[in-house]
Amino acid sequence: MYGLIGRMIAAPGRRDDLVAILLGGEGELPGCLSYVIARDIENADALWITEVWDSEAAHKASLALPAVKAAIAKGMPLIAGFDNRVVTEPMGGVGLERGDAARP
Amino acid sequence: MYGLIGRMIAAPGRRDDLVAILLGGEGELPGCLSYVIARDIENADALWITEVWDSEAAHKASLALPAVKAAIAKGMPLIAGFDNRVVTEPMGGVGLERGDAARP
Repeated sequence: MYGLIGRMIAAPGRRDDLVAILLGGEGELPGCLSYVIARDIENADALWITEVWDSEAAHKASLALPAVKAAIAKGMPLIAGFDNRVVTEPMGGVGLERGDAARP
Repeated sequence: MYGLIGRMIAAPGRRDDLVAILLGGEGELPGCLSYVIARDIENADALWITEVWDSEAAHKASLALPAVKAAIAKGMPLIAGFDNRVVTEPMGGVGLERGDAARP
């Protein structure tokens, strides 16, 4: 499995608009086992995104999906930056969906 | 929802033993929506643990479960430390199981 943990910084005051875009996509994300968007409780403009994919290739392929490209294009103007990015190798746990996950 | 992201540092060379303990528990984790154990790909002794719970109270209550207490007691000698701990407020996503999650 391939994992990503990272923090996204929204443009000032636009965090919830960005959450709506990130959670509002449609269609399936093949190979996506977990994808969680969470507010940082100390920084009002920051979001944590934690992801688990079948493979790094599945993650890369997702970036080419029309629904994902549309969400990226829509969200980009609301993003001020990224930090705390970590690549991981997930070993297991709770909440790793089997099969192709539908976008929430 | 209540989220935790953090890094656990295993005693030198004991990371995989620690993973086995963390993933080898039994019983249910009421209120646990996601719990992922992942190897750090740059530090051979480090693990990332990302968690999503219904509430902070559900997380705290889990620490009193017999199976969890047993896993903590067994794992403690293999843990050298913790860092990068972040509390988050998860907003949604893929892989957030409904109901009481069974330990993997």
